[in-house]
Amino acid sequence: MNNQAIGFIDSGVGGLTVVKEALKQLPNEKIYYLGDTARMPYGPRPSEQVLEFTWEMTSFLLSKGIKMLVIACNTATAAALDDLREKLAIPVIGVIKPGSRAAIKSSKNQRVGVIGTEGTIKSGAYKRTLHEKNPNLFVTSLPCPEFVQIVENDQYESKYAEQVVAETLGFFDDKNIDTLVMGCTHYPLLRPFIQKAVGDKVTLIDSGAETVNDVSTILDYFDIAAKREEETTHEFYTTGSSDDFNEIASGWLGLENINAKTIHLGQGD
Amino acid sequence: MNNQAIGFIDSGVGGLTVVKEALKQLPNEKIYYLGDTARMPYGPRPSEQVLEFTWEMTSFLLSKGIKMLVIACNTATAAALDDLREKLAIPVIGVIKPGSRAAIKSSKNQRVGVIGTEGTIKSGAYKRTLHEKNPNLFVTSLPCPEFVQIVENDQYESKYAEQVVAETLGFFDDKNIDTLVMGCTHYPLLRPFIQKAVGDKVTLIDSGAETVNDVSTILDYFDIAAKREEETTHEFYTTGSSDDFNEIASGWLGLENINAKTIHLGQGD
Repeated sequence: MNNQAIGFIDSGVGGLTVVKEALKQLPNEKIYYLGDTARMPYGPRPSEQVLEFTWEMTSFLLSKGIKMLVIACNTATAAALDDLREKLAIPVIGVIKPGSRAAIKSSKNQRVGVIGTEGTIKSGAYKRTLHEKNPNLFVTSLPCPEFVQIVENDQYESKYAEQVVAETLGFFDDKNIDTLVMGCTHYPLLRPFIQKAVGDKVTLIDSGAETVNDVSTILDYFDIAAKREEETTHEFYTTGSSDDFNEIASGWLGLENINAKTIHLGQGD
Repeated sequence: MNNQAIGFIDSGVGGLTVVKEALKQLPNEKIYYLGDTARMPYGPRPSEQVLEFTWEMTSFLLSKGIKMLVIACNTATAAALDDLREKLAIPVIGVIKPGSRAAIKSSKNQRVGVIGTEGTIKSGAYKRTLHEKNPNLFVTSLPCPEFVQIVENDQYESKYAEQVVAETLGFFDDKNIDTLVMGCTHYPLLRPFIQKAVGDKVTLIDSGAETVNDVSTILDYFDIAAKREEETTHEFYTTGSSDDFNEIASGWLGLENINAKTIHLGQGD
């Protein structure tokens, strides 16, 4: 039993899709969230830089006191999970393996699509993980560079978003996939448009939501789940505008009083 | 990556319900199974003795070389999980927390039933775990002492089994539960009769099958999942009759060539 917070980090607001699931599945847990909005998107950055930024976010949350770290960002998971796990004494959970596992469970025809940022797709992390688990899987990956920015600009319900998603995902029309991994935690906010674009027969995998199952398992495994009598207060931090963050976060999480605080990391950029 | 086997232990054939799910979800993994059929049922035994027997089973599989241990038995999980986890360097997974988590996710009306052996129910392990995770849950527990023996006698499809199950579970008629935890790995073999007895509106939780999700998460967490080019051979051991074991195991798992070996543990009993 451990009532310390679980830390969630992301390049921006995408990790809130993981938090949303955590609030549902793990109501006893206190959450500290940090979105590096000032330096997003991470997708186009070199992986060394993503690693550096991820360490900066991690240090901040460690200084606040966390019992577990969730890298609620696929780009950062691909770039930094192994290094963080090796060096930290607290459990570190990434989003790529849980998403891969769910995809393998879901696919009947062995043809799986993966969408993500340039960084995530270039790292090959999904393809590698999927093939390790099932060498017969046929995996088609597609970077979707514009999606993150659309979500961060709070345009994820716009006509423009629908158009970009439809055009980008037209790529899968002749790929005959039955499962599509949303390999970026921002993408579930675009879920209705993504589903429409690929059709109802394709199962969408929300790698972030799947990750919460892992968080729950690891909390139990190390016996560090929280036990709480009264309600807890979550804390939200952003390196960008707290007003923008509050607006997206309260809309998406259905919570009032997000009260995000703006903090500064590194040398800026 | 680690191609060693995962060990599964149970008082008898019940743990095969967990193995069945593992074969499906984790086709790369090699399985060593040991059922202590000669000394089952564990349910009525004092917990100190169950702990002792569980250690004997564990030592046998350790000597064969395993990378992870699954206590595929609720009675043994209640009696021995903490002790084994504390003393072994390999990961040890029990069936009670995964089952509890699934029950909490499933229940809408907050009224959950738990069935298990006398040992499991008396330990209070499910009630305690469920309440830790959700203090508002109303939990009704019922020991079902006859079920294990019915399964071990290969009578689990008989008219007699149907009758015993119906009579025993009549207890829940006025309990208004919407979720029932099958808190014994033998019970999924009786699933059709259990479902019929409690009605279609009650969701049955197969704690063993849920456990395989945990196994998968922990394999990934410690990076010890198997990677295999060719098919692997599983190994089955029993302290009882290998013919009886082979018959139930091949029927339930849909595998030929179970070829269980009989081994001896402890002083007999």
